[in-house]
Amino acid sequence: MGPEEFRAAGHELIDWIADYRARIPELPVQARVGPGEVAGKLPGNAPEEAEPFSRLLADLEAIVVPGVTQVQHPRYFGWFPANATLSSALGELASAGLGALGITWQSAPALTEVEEVVVEWLRELTALPESWKGVIQDTASTACLVALLAARERATDYSEVRGGLQAVGAPLTVYTTEHAHSSVMKAVALAGYGRDNLRLVAVDPVTYAMRPDALAKALDEDVEAGRRPAAVVVNVGTTGTTAVDPLAEIVPLAQRYGMWVHVDAAMAGSALLLPEMRWLVDGVAGADSLNWNPHKWLGTLGDCSLLYVADPAHLIRVMSTNPSYLRSAVDGEVTQYKDWGIPLGRRFRALKLWFQLRLDGVEAIRARLRRDLDNARWLAGQVEAAPGWRVLAPVVLQTVVLRHEPAGLDADGLDAHTLAWADRINASGAALVTPSLLDGAWSVRVSIGAENTERADVEQLWRLLQTAVEVAEAG
Amino acid sequence: MGPEEFRAAGHELIDWIADYRARIPELPVQARVGPGEVAGKLPGNAPEEAEPFSRLLADLEAIVVPGVTQVQHPRYFGWFPANATLSSALGELASAGLGALGITWQSAPALTEVEEVVVEWLRELTALPESWKGVIQDTASTACLVALLAARERATDYSEVRGGLQAVGAPLTVYTTEHAHSSVMKAVALAGYGRDNLRLVAVDPVTYAMRPDALAKALDEDVEAGRRPAAVVVNVGTTGTTAVDPLAEIVPLAQRYGMWVHVDAAMAGSALLLPEMRWLVDGVAGADSLNWNPHKWLGTLGDCSLLYVADPAHLIRVMSTNPSYLRSAVDGEVTQYKDWGIPLGRRFRALKLWFQLRLDGVEAIRARLRRDLDNARWLAGQVEAAPGWRVLAPVVLQTVVLRHEPAGLDADGLDAHTLAWADRINASGAALVTPSLLDGAWSVRVSIGAENTERADVEQLWRLLQTAVEVAEAG
Repeated sequence: MGPEEFRAAGHELIDWIADYRARIPELPVQARVGPGEVAGKLPGNAPEEAEPFSRLLADLEAIVVPGVTQVQHPRYFGWFPANATLSSALGELASAGLGALGITWQSAPALTEVEEVVVEWLRELTALPESWKGVIQDTASTACLVALLAARERATDYSEVRGGLQAVGAPLTVYTTEHAHSSVMKAVALAGYGRDNLRLVAVDPVTYAMRPDALAKALDEDVEAGRRPAAVVVNVGTTGTTAVDPLAEIVPLAQRYGMWVHVDAAMAGSALLLPEMRWLVDGVAGADSLNWNPHKWLGTLGDCSLLYVADPAHLIRVMSTNPSYLRSAVDGEVTQYKDWGIPLGRRFRALKLWFQLRLDGVEAIRARLRRDLDNARWLAGQVEAAPGWRVLAPVVLQTVVLRHEPAGLDADGLDAHTLAWADRINASGAALVTPSLLDGAWSVRVSIGAENTERADVEQLWRLLQTAVEVAEAG
Repeated sequence: MGPEEFRAAGHELIDWIADYRARIPELPVQARVGPGEVAGKLPGNAPEEAEPFSRLLADLEAIVVPGVTQVQHPRYFGWFPANATLSSALGELASAGLGALGITWQSAPALTEVEEVVVEWLRELTALPESWKGVIQDTASTACLVALLAARERATDYSEVRGGLQAVGAPLTVYTTEHAHSSVMKAVALAGYGRDNLRLVAVDPVTYAMRPDALAKALDEDVEAGRRPAAVVVNVGTTGTTAVDPLAEIVPLAQRYGMWVHVDAAMAGSALLLPEMRWLVDGVAGADSLNWNPHKWLGTLGDCSLLYVADPAHLIRVMSTNPSYLRSAVDGEVTQYKDWGIPLGRRFRALKLWFQLRLDGVEAIRARLRRDLDNARWLAGQVEAAPGWRVLAPVVLQTVVLRHEPAGLDADGLDAHTLAWADRINASGAALVTPSLLDGAWSVRVSIGAENTERADVEQLWRLLQTAVEVAEAG
């Protein structure tokens, strides 16, 4: 495809996207297709001959749109805010248009340096320590794996360049809570620690936050038994309830054993743009790494996950390679992001952040985050005041975990009731919420923070919740 | 930014991209900025207030374009073809516009099922075994790590769910050659095998391909010493010379010890669309995984790396997580790509491939690949026929490794001469080639295959090479 064909098709696609975004509020939030339905509409082979763009656009409309859950919908309250601001979408388009190659500084100096600059902008905006350096990863899962690999190599004095983890004697142990994201257990498994060496430290029964006394006890027991504590993953805003582990109390315990402290603030990190929310990471200066995802609440189109580290030289030593075909005369003077994570090549992802911050401005982003925090408090207030309803966890961010608890139901009956009314709302297409297990029972998470969710949408959700349980009870 | 602002800015950006792509041939291929030059042009803080789109566009033009090496230039012969076809750029734009969330099948069924379909299209187009299943990863580095993690877990009967690699007794060993991509050694290190347990098997001095007899000997020695061969990475088209390890001879040796066979065809995989090139992977039915990057020669905008596996159930078992908030009623009936790699969330990357294959058509893509193979053979013929010049490795794909070897230079002098004339070409902006070490001496790689590289561009390169050495000799 040449530039002129691209120009014609590109204009059509821009109009299609603008129209699509404008009509999202009229679409059902949850996709209504069954397994295999989308695939069944596609041919079994790639076409030998080129097709006209109009056919692609028609398939986008007829097959793809009905096949995605509309997470940009104002009444999307599902998993987590997965905002894809149109300002950042323009940045992605610019990246696609440039088609730059991000394998070394030399292959695209601007790709590296714009990333350095915007990552530093966001460090300053979130008040992380001035000496910390950041890098864009794809997701929090990868960032956590990178952190636990860095922790493993620090604890073993770079076993990777010798006999590997398999040659290490005393088993290394990792600590977090049962409320950690599933990616933490996955990272522990993939990094080779083994799930038996992951300690799920007890949490406070009300806040679901890690208990420092329980961590201290677990550390003592492991050290006593000859194991070597290597890392603790501190959850700032858990997926289930947005619980906040007490970082300031965890850091001194970790330092006693030279452990790596990784802060997982994947969703909550956006809140650090608000000075009044920085208590979330009190004590962060004593941590080793922190990760958060602008591709969630902040609204940068995915993938855009930020990993900050206190000691970049260590990360580079763990990750670096230096083949002859990638060497250049300026190697000592520039940042080589290939040595800051797993992939060698990277996209020009920094443009998404650059465009979003400049086209939207920080002030408007802060106002939106505060709007969402207010909306969550408002909803929690309504729920708490309504008979039969309960808020199940402190509302410290934009998530409200709730349950309708009619009298006379046993545990199984209550679970069935909860899943039934949540499913009714989701199937209606009017809103989307996420059922989730808490203390072994089903609850419903209402995660507020879609870009276009206003108070009126939350009010409508609250009416939907009340209607749904009435219908469920009647049924 | 609302849909109407996006529409206006989007049209401007589409025009800018079309104009930019059209004038790439007039730009210097290699970026001419020095370290820190791009960063120095950017403000130290993110803006509080929104900026007009015109300012972004002006900065793209003035700061970003001069700051990237133009790998879409017709005389880009550097690292490897890093094509970013405009058809696939439209797919990326569609993905950005949709802003879908790829965490489970349920969050965006079409995101999963379009990926399943296009990955199967490409399996069929490359004639990989019918029972194999594929998944899009970000890069070959990640794909290799995933393969070596899968190998590790197969060799240890899923040590990850018990004591981890650190509890495994006999050391696991991995085999490849010194010509493997640097990401292989990195994956060995990160997966915890340890670099001491990576065997660089001897290669044939002419073809640079792995010698099966040397592999057999290394395996025997390791087993004799109580080590456990876990995996072999077979290089199909090495980065340095596009050497092709003899897969069909390696597979039976690997099967003798139950080893995982991973085929790294990152660049060369595109050639498998041509029936006459399928000899590259003779014996692949006995392998366990194969990776290739449509984001290289095929021309899909990065990131788009395909990993195919013979046994997806094993990969899923290694990678799976199942938190309550991601469960759904259809879990048993659908593909959950979160369990096929490291990241939980994924972008709608399949759209890039879907758009490219449909808008360009397979026939035209095959013709382009054949054009590049022809051009490489033509250049190799010219070089071989010219006094003082030498082709240093068999030209089996689109890469020509060459050197100008004037009489009377010792090894150091020859290295200096090579680096000088390569640097002269690159600094001129007229073309880009990559110096690379081969057998301890500097050579120059000419990697043909940019989307717009025609015979005339290769002819011009050949004139540039001849002029550059004359100037270097005169200087």
